[in-house]
Amino acid sequence: NGGESKQESEPGNVLSGFQLSAVLSDSAREKNIFIHGKLADQEAVVILEKTPIREECLAEIFSGSRLTLEMKNDIYSTYRLQAPLHLNEIKTTVVCPATEKHVKKYLRQESFLVEETFEDYQSITLPYIQEQSFSVQWVYNILEKKAEAERIVFEDPDPDVGFVLLPDFKWDQKQVEDLYLIALVNKRGISCLRDLTSDHLEMLQNIFHKGKEAILQRYNLPASKLRIYLHYQPSYYHLHVHFTKLGYDAPGCGVERAHLLADVIQNLQSDPEYYKTRTLYFPLRADNGLLGKFKEAGRL
Amino acid sequence: NGGESKQESEPGNVLSGFQLSAVLSDSAREKNIFIHGKLADQEAVVILEKTPIREECLAEIFSGSRLTLEMKNDIYSTYRLQAPLHLNEIKTTVVCPATEKHVKKYLRQESFLVEETFEDYQSITLPYIQEQSFSVQWVYNILEKKAEAERIVFEDPDPDVGFVLLPDFKWDQKQVEDLYLIALVNKRGISCLRDLTSDHLEMLQNIFHKGKEAILQRYNLPASKLRIYLHYQPSYYHLHVHFTKLGYDAPGCGVERAHLLADVIQNLQSDPEYYKTRTLYFPLRADNGLLGKFKEAGRL
Repeated sequence: NGGESKQESEPGNVLSGFQLSAVLSDSAREKNIFIHGKLADQEAVVILEKTPIREECLAEIFSGSRLTLEMKNDIYSTYRLQAPLHLNEIKTTVVCPATEKHVKKYLRQESFLVEETFEDYQSITLPYIQEQSFSVQWVYNILEKKAEAERIVFEDPDPDVGFVLLPDFKWDQKQVEDLYLIALVNKRGISCLRDLTSDHLEMLQNIFHKGKEAILQRYNLPASKLRIYLHYQPSYYHLHVHFTKLGYDAPGCGVERAHLLADVIQNLQSDPEYYKTRTLYFPLRADNGLLGKFKEAGRL
Repeated sequence: NGGESKQESEPGNVLSGFQLSAVLSDSAREKNIFIHGKLADQEAVVILEKTPIREECLAEIFSGSRLTLEMKNDIYSTYRLQAPLHLNEIKTTVVCPATEKHVKKYLRQESFLVEETFEDYQSITLPYIQEQSFSVQWVYNILEKKAEAERIVFEDPDPDVGFVLLPDFKWDQKQVEDLYLIALVNKRGISCLRDLTSDHLEMLQNIFHKGKEAILQRYNLPASKLRIYLHYQPSYYHLHVHFTKLGYDAPGCGVERAHLLADVIQNLQSDPEYYKTRTLYFPLRADNGLLGKFKEAGRL
């Protein structure tokens, strides 16, 4: 709209007959979009992703583009730039015929930020967690050395303040750039942040200090390169702490879900009941049962 | 190379005379590139970033593009797609004349996590900030309507608790998926989180409530889709609050730098001096002068 009304499609453009059913997901940051639809009566998934900007093309982009000024303030100005076609392509992937599994794989679930008072926790979240009785048997298997024993990076066997440190599944351990380790506490029955009081300070400080020390010894990475945090809500309800490399954009390290262990310790030091009085915020995906419970309770 | 040898530049293209000195950083994931060079004998930083792919343009992209098959294997095939110029622009930001600070800001650097007690703030951070006397003239230009007045999304003119809400430079405002707004407080002299006490609660709550309301009115996005936070350290020392869309992985929304406004409010409600007693953690890039100060003081 506003451009030339060239309606006939380019020759050999198989996508000109594409019938869009739904956008499965997209990323404004990564400049991609995942689309479900039909190509000649067959189910198809089409992925478009803009290409990275390459240094060797810059001279031609600067000399051969059309610039339109959008905004100017002091030393700052912004433009819309139209680059030569061959320097600004879109990588296109077509899966056709696509199965339902392909469609689901690319379907993004929207997230909503939930505001949870401690009363909400007691009346909505806790009953939901108990009702679901999510299994943490796999955690117990690790703690009991029935599984993954060979993956353990460090262990403090103390039953009250000890923990097991091991690589997260997401980390292939090939490079420290995306280092991701998990500390699982030995003590059972502490499900999440909401359960923590000053009684747990010794355990938390133990994980903070010995975890950092173990990572320095094993991976030669000092504390100043680590992001150490808990999730709320966690993805499983046995207390655990995440250690990821600073600078690695690990999934779940955003302020809406992560709580720095150092802050948790300070908060409990100044108020033993900090996590039993505060309103906590966290994102839940649209298909998460807990979100439904918050909606039923009129809390969203 | 390989294209038409059209060497004459587009009319009004101020970048046609740009002389590249160095690529400061780039991201293949985010499709952006930060470049240092000269524009008419002045130092300049140019930022190119491809725009997100918008759903409403898909039909025109599919019908009006040129496709070139690259690979076909079973149900999977990949193509290079050349889209109509106006549907595939590159957002371009020019800083000119740029200072050495601008160049450094965009130069990719390793980061280190700094532990700052309140004493460190007073003896290391505060003197450094004062010594540097970073200019916030561009903020005052906005508050005084000398610049960007037409970009203002919402304004509460109250001198004590009021603020101006406007889109961040990083957001092209074409889609809400990567919504990014900034609230600049009217009141001057509040540089950052460390300055906040319970005296500022009314202002913070005002921003929290009216900011959410304005975004709902203007963009039809409810509070449950927003991540509202402050940075510590901020990139400029005039208090401001970030509003980004939940699910958009905005740069700087990690737990190591972002502080949820809702948490800041609760913390000040329970302890008026919270940010004057706590140890705060934040990442600093290797070239940040403040990092050098922490090193000199033996705090890293």
